[in-house]
Amino acid sequence: MYLSFQDIISRVETEISRLRFVNHPESLYAPISYMLSIGGKRIRPSLALVSCNIYSDSIEHSIPPALCVEVFHNFTLMHDDLIDNSDRRRKKPTVHKVWNKNTAILSGDAMLITAYRLISESPSSNLKELLDLFTTTALEICGGQQYDMDFESRTDVTEAEYIEMIRLKTAVLLACALKAGAIIGGASEEEAMHLYELGVYIGLAYQLQDDLLDVYGDPETFGKIVGGDILSNKKTFLLIYALEQASQSQSEEFHRWFGQKTFDPSEKVAAFKRMYDALGVKEAAEAKIKSYYDKAWEHLHMLQAPHGRLAVLEEVTNYLLYRQA
Amino acid sequence: MYLSFQDIISRVETEISRLRFVNHPESLYAPISYMLSIGGKRIRPSLALVSCNIYSDSIEHSIPPALCVEVFHNFTLMHDDLIDNSDRRRKKPTVHKVWNKNTAILSGDAMLITAYRLISESPSSNLKELLDLFTTTALEICGGQQYDMDFESRTDVTEAEYIEMIRLKTAVLLACALKAGAIIGGASEEEAMHLYELGVYIGLAYQLQDDLLDVYGDPETFGKIVGGDILSNKKTFLLIYALEQASQSQSEEFHRWFGQKTFDPSEKVAAFKRMYDALGVKEAAEAKIKSYYDKAWEHLHMLQAPHGRLAVLEEVTNYLLYRQA
Repeated sequence: MYLSFQDIISRVETEISRLRFVNHPESLYAPISYMLSIGGKRIRPSLALVSCNIYSDSIEHSIPPALCVEVFHNFTLMHDDLIDNSDRRRKKPTVHKVWNKNTAILSGDAMLITAYRLISESPSSNLKELLDLFTTTALEICGGQQYDMDFESRTDVTEAEYIEMIRLKTAVLLACALKAGAIIGGASEEEAMHLYELGVYIGLAYQLQDDLLDVYGDPETFGKIVGGDILSNKKTFLLIYALEQASQSQSEEFHRWFGQKTFDPSEKVAAFKRMYDALGVKEAAEAKIKSYYDKAWEHLHMLQAPHGRLAVLEEVTNYLLYRQA
Repeated sequence: MYLSFQDIISRVETEISRLRFVNHPESLYAPISYMLSIGGKRIRPSLALVSCNIYSDSIEHSIPPALCVEVFHNFTLMHDDLIDNSDRRRKKPTVHKVWNKNTAILSGDAMLITAYRLISESPSSNLKELLDLFTTTALEICGGQQYDMDFESRTDVTEAEYIEMIRLKTAVLLACALKAGAIIGGASEEEAMHLYELGVYIGLAYQLQDDLLDVYGDPETFGKIVGGDILSNKKTFLLIYALEQASQSQSEEFHRWFGQKTFDPSEKVAAFKRMYDALGVKEAAEAKIKSYYDKAWEHLHMLQAPHGRLAVLEEVTNYLLYRQA
């Protein structure tokens, strides 16, 4: 059966709500349930089901790797929130705020192990391949997070370094989800590779959209504080591009703000925005996103899938590339 | 070939020194190499090789799960040191002291993933069974650590709860190592089960020895500060037994010490020792260890292994049950 995107999203929600953990010690597992219950768009597991459904009428076997990817993603959020000392996630208090730091460490560990428990429920004929894909991806994501941390203390991060960081931190998990679904669905190696690359470019575009929305997004729909990246001096694509293009005096103004410990937040955001506008940062980011968009579609068009089986993948690709929130 | 315990230990050391990680970002992988290089007795991986060697002349296939268990063990130490805010491990500064807390979180995560990378190199015929064994064990260990943390704020921990906690936190990993080796070596399910149980009882005895050595060990050979558990009010077997047996006035003295924020360390250790001695705590712990020792040997004697193949297992069992450091 060929499912609509809505069907797939609701199947994912059902499966997540059905997840059962060892229920003791309660203090270890309650934070895992909490983290999974506060939502998110469930994009990653949905991608796995969508790509499986291109090649197979049955998506049952793609459920365990899809859940694995979602549980893993939420594990990274639990530890990243602790690392970044973030108080809120999806408008709710983070795990280390509801409980404490040690609980966030340990429940996160149990969550990572749970992700492996899920992937090991994959059909035995694909088990080794899926395990290797997932392990490689998981290590890349740790690497991406480490680069992100290393970048905090640097002001000379290049655009290429930044793109590589977001490829590792964000893009490869979308790619992994699409490829895992394809493997389970019985796609050829070449098809699976195109779906992987599609995922990478969707992921890169997605993260750059996130950078843009931080500055130019609608506060009502974005769900985060507008200008949050600016206030924390985060090396986003926008800032890196701006620093590369800045005149001597603009560069000095950026560095003055970096050094400032106390300031009026709205003044800092306005100052950055003014320089971004002068330097054409928004247009540069949009052009970059467009280039990833084109690459994504190139790979999508290389797929040899039977006619009509790509409609949902096209729909979700468009949705992700043109998101406003 | 039937190997001596010395051969097995040196084989393990060689394999650990040969472990290669993705080498970038360096800041993510250097702490993993550091953690593995500062030593430890390599008991867990050695047990996997020993039990494989009972059933098979070749131990090659038991190397990946053996390394998995050792890498996992060191991952738990990295995160536990952070959770306990410990400054030293094996007489060296801990990872979060050499680097920082965030590095200890993230490198630990990468280490846990690396453990899975290792176990997934097991022969495909055993892969699913070994994965399930390892995942179950890993979740039990997280549960044990969580109980240990939960016990910190309680003074009513029972002996049974304590034994269950150390079974989860310490014993099941030794059991897992022995069982994994047996599975790879081709042992029957029943043999593998006896080796698992042997590991549990060795582990329980081992942890109780640790509790005893904290108070009654030789400071020269023990490698930790004598009385460290007493100073931190740790709910060890000794303290739990003492609290259960204490008279009204002894109980009040314990609770007075628990509440004291500033004190002379040697005075507190001496006070606890005096009460332990009066309550026969050492003898009770020794009797408990003896009972586990007997259980361990019962399971060892149930093994149907060919004559002469159990010599090393007997040697290492004795070594672990009568350790002084």
